[in-house]
Amino acid sequence: MTNEQRQGGGPLTLTDAAERAGGRVVGDAGVVVTDVAPVDEAEPGHLAFLASRRYVRHAAGCRGAAFLVSEELADAVPDGSSRVVVSEPYPAMRALLQHFHPPRPWAASVHPTAIVGSDVVLGDGLEIGPYAVIEDGVRIGDGSRVGAHCVVGRGSRLGRACRLHPQVVLYEDTVLGDRVTVHSGARLGPDGFGYTVVDGEHAKIPQVGRCVVGDDVEIGANTTIDRGSLGDTRIGPGAKLDNLVHIAHNVRVGARSLMAALVGIAGSTRIGEGSFFGGQAGAINQLEIGDGVRVTAQTGIIGDLASGETVTGYPARPHREFLKSQALVSRLPGLAERVKRLEDEVSRLAKG
Amino acid sequence: MTNEQRQGGGPLTLTDAAERAGGRVVGDAGVVVTDVAPVDEAEPGHLAFLASRRYVRHAAGCRGAAFLVSEELADAVPDGSSRVVVSEPYPAMRALLQHFHPPRPWAASVHPTAIVGSDVVLGDGLEIGPYAVIEDGVRIGDGSRVGAHCVVGRGSRLGRACRLHPQVVLYEDTVLGDRVTVHSGARLGPDGFGYTVVDGEHAKIPQVGRCVVGDDVEIGANTTIDRGSLGDTRIGPGAKLDNLVHIAHNVRVGARSLMAALVGIAGSTRIGEGSFFGGQAGAINQLEIGDGVRVTAQTGIIGDLASGETVTGYPARPHREFLKSQALVSRLPGLAERVKRLEDEVSRLAKG
Amino acid sequence: MTNEQRQGGGPLTLTDAAERAGGRVVGDAGVVVTDVAPVDEAEPGHLAFLASRRYVRHAAGCRGAAFLVSEELADAVPDGSSRVVVSEPYPAMRALLQHFHPPRPWAASVHPTAIVGSDVVLGDGLEIGPYAVIEDGVRIGDGSRVGAHCVVGRGSRLGRACRLHPQVVLYEDTVLGDRVTVHSGARLGPDGFGYTVVDGEHAKIPQVGRCVVGDDVEIGANTTIDRGSLGDTRIGPGAKLDNLVHIAHNVRVGARSLMAALVGIAGSTRIGEGSFFGGQAGAINQLEIGDGVRVTAQTGIIGDLASGETVTGYPARPHREFLKSQALVSRLPGLAERVKRLEDEVSRLAKG
Repeated sequence: MTNEQRQGGGPLTLTDAAERAGGRVVGDAGVVVTDVAPVDEAEPGHLAFLASRRYVRHAAGCRGAAFLVSEELADAVPDGSSRVVVSEPYPAMRALLQHFHPPRPWAASVHPTAIVGSDVVLGDGLEIGPYAVIEDGVRIGDGSRVGAHCVVGRGSRLGRACRLHPQVVLYEDTVLGDRVTVHSGARLGPDGFGYTVVDGEHAKIPQVGRCVVGDDVEIGANTTIDRGSLGDTRIGPGAKLDNLVHIAHNVRVGARSLMAALVGIAGSTRIGEGSFFGGQAGAINQLEIGDGVRVTAQTGIIGDLASGETVTGYPARPHREFLKSQALVSRLPGLAERVKRLEDEVSRLAKG
Repeated sequence: MTNEQRQGGGPLTLTDAAERAGGRVVGDAGVVVTDVAPVDEAEPGHLAFLASRRYVRHAAGCRGAAFLVSEELADAVPDGSSRVVVSEPYPAMRALLQHFHPPRPWAASVHPTAIVGSDVVLGDGLEIGPYAVIEDGVRIGDGSRVGAHCVVGRGSRLGRACRLHPQVVLYEDTVLGDRVTVHSGARLGPDGFGYTVVDGEHAKIPQVGRCVVGDDVEIGANTTIDRGSLGDTRIGPGAKLDNLVHIAHNVRVGARSLMAALVGIAGSTRIGEGSFFGGQAGAINQLEIGDGVRVTAQTGIIGDLASGETVTGYPARPHREFLKSQALVSRLPGLAERVKRLEDEVSRLAKG
Repeated sequence: MTNEQRQGGGPLTLTDAAERAGGRVVGDAGVVVTDVAPVDEAEPGHLAFLASRRYVRHAAGCRGAAFLVSEELADAVPDGSSRVVVSEPYPAMRALLQHFHPPRPWAASVHPTAIVGSDVVLGDGLEIGPYAVIEDGVRIGDGSRVGAHCVVGRGSRLGRACRLHPQVVLYEDTVLGDRVTVHSGARLGPDGFGYTVVDGEHAKIPQVGRCVVGDDVEIGANTTIDRGSLGDTRIGPGAKLDNLVHIAHNVRVGARSLMAALVGIAGSTRIGEGSFFGGQAGAINQLEIGDGVRVTAQTGIIGDLASGETVTGYPARPHREFLKSQALVSRLPGLAERVKRLEDEVSRLAKG
């Protein structure tokens, strides 16, 4: 169920909805809808969203008032039902959700329990939540929000319109661009995992680089991004990291790259722009990974990758090759059988 | 070493211990024990727990006063040692630990530093810890405990006898049933990883669903459960999630399912009741996974699974099939050798 | 860019730098350097660090004042450039970073917002940060630092010169040795994932052991180490755990072992001294893993391992064997082709 409290936009006729969604109406254009909902959970009044063939089976029993449906599935909904048909369903859904669920208004304020250090420069229209700790020398740009219990370490800089959800920790000298969103429990700038053996013990190498994050980055809950050892760790503009991702020291993640949950990238590996890493995938250290690379879930990368590659498995290899070798392995019992038959036949032939 | 301070129950004779454990005494029933301990760490006075053949080697040198042992291993302990023999060792151990280590008593109180918003409804006998933040419109049921530095987001609802350990964050509109335990650093309800491409950039889709957790669920430390995008993310009653688990938006985890640490489930995948996921296992998005499925550690599921299946590997396949193909791969050197021999033989035969 | 504020040591001539680094000067010994930087990011005045053949391509365009270079690569830098040549580049870099970036001084103090319980024993020269919560019966050794928003649970004991970064939670009765560093969001001592089936439900087994950490251990951000169930979970002296690592109840990690990010070790598994686990590797429960074992990234261990082994893959097998079977699988298409040819030839021979 969507949340009544966050609803802000009023009801829409299908005509209005189609306009916002960039689509066309089939059926009764005067039907009024109050929200968007998944096809299998839509209630009366809802615009039921259908964009995947896997969920077509729920269309017949759908209780919603009308469908928001992709061109491809426009005829997969019951005859006679009203629908808004769109060529790009996700941007359409997004536009309608932005109408029905506008961001909650918030008031600029610094909570009296927040602790603000010396030489701190706070922009206009900020929100600083309860028990937040802003250490010395921090600068925060206009319109940014720092949630409850956040710690912004000494000398850190946040751009404009950033949002730190509760309990984010930025270690000292962390740099965020504009419009960066960081979810609860993310840790930016802890020491990298850098040791060297001195007198038989693992001696820590001072981690003197920073964690530098570009504009429009979103960082998931409990994700960790280490500060650089020598030089900085950098997350490019528009990159999105899911929850529980680990980015090691001196990694560079290119602009607009996406990483699903539990991905781990080891030290100094550089990833190009617009790449995608599926969940639990990883890369070892000091690699060069190109632009537009697609890495399927759980893949383990242990060598450089050219731009545009799609890779799978451990060790990562081209996806097609992986599928082919999987198929051959599954046919191994048959191959072994054929070899056995050949041996019998050859033995017979040899005996003459 | 178990902790003196948490010890509450008094010493037990083996007769009393056997009664609580649902077992029978072999040897001196008057032996008195003060705690349960692993067979290789038991001190004088302890009841040494032995339920796995792997630890039988420690039985001879055990310093404990007596053994708590499974029927299967009843004769694996030194001749003449006193023992409580049980058919179900883990429930027996549990019953005895509940006696020796009763829950610590706690006092209902709201710490003066806790910040409680407007329109909050607090049940009877609550404990709210230091620096906790309870936002507007929250409801918390009787006998629940909210630890230090927790943030309970606006409009969230907790049932009775819940326990949030320190530094849990519930984003707005999170719903917990009764007797839900959440360990430190878990994040419930952050935004799902939902973007769509608009004008060449990843544009965020508003995440307007909730995170809804059933009765008797336990959630491990630093685990993240995203709120739904459209519709809710749901954790069924009696499910148990270990530490550092990731549950994406709109996932449904069935009742009494268990997930070990570092498991990741991608968006909209539905998992039946009573399933088990080993550590670091994962599933991609939009799958249907049945009831009573067993997923071994590190397995990667990329297709639907029927109820009752046991799967292993990447991509996940039936466990027996996985073992068989592993065995065949290990026999590949021999197969290649046989093919080489056949080629030689056939070449000889062809030459006449 | 390294951080001006943390710079403390003054400039060094190459003669002085070589002395600290344990190396020799080639070129102009009077060149003055102010910091160490990666070869591809060095600015004028920097000593450019080069210890990997992968980065030699950046040497020609390097803007630094001189090179800090390994013996092996001593001639890979441009002719005529000044350099400090060392046999062990990482200890050398470490020594120079310790000069250029000495630890920031800090003042002993207990922040007025810190909450300190009863029967707490605080050593000399402590720093306790804002909003920290020190529960009853805690003892903290001399010179330790507890960051903002930390929770040190009832009865816990910290040795001397420990450092808890902000938002660390120690559950009750946790024990840390001397010089233990814990990064933000780490959780030590939450309940292990221990249930047993009683009346068809997963019933929780009381987790009455502790989490015990040796001297000189470093624990990464958002890492979780469960308390013991029966008996303790133990991290040996000098061990280093990276971010987002999971250590289950009753695990023992041997002295000086290293675990990279996202490693998971299941319950009661014991790991010897000086072992190394690559990122996202894991081990199932109740295993015995020897000393000096090397586990490559993403490896899944499902059986005991002798000391000194290097293992790869799922299930983990000796690294060489893994590479061999990978090679054979990649040659399967050729093998299948040879079997087909044999069948044709044998068929011809049989007819002939």
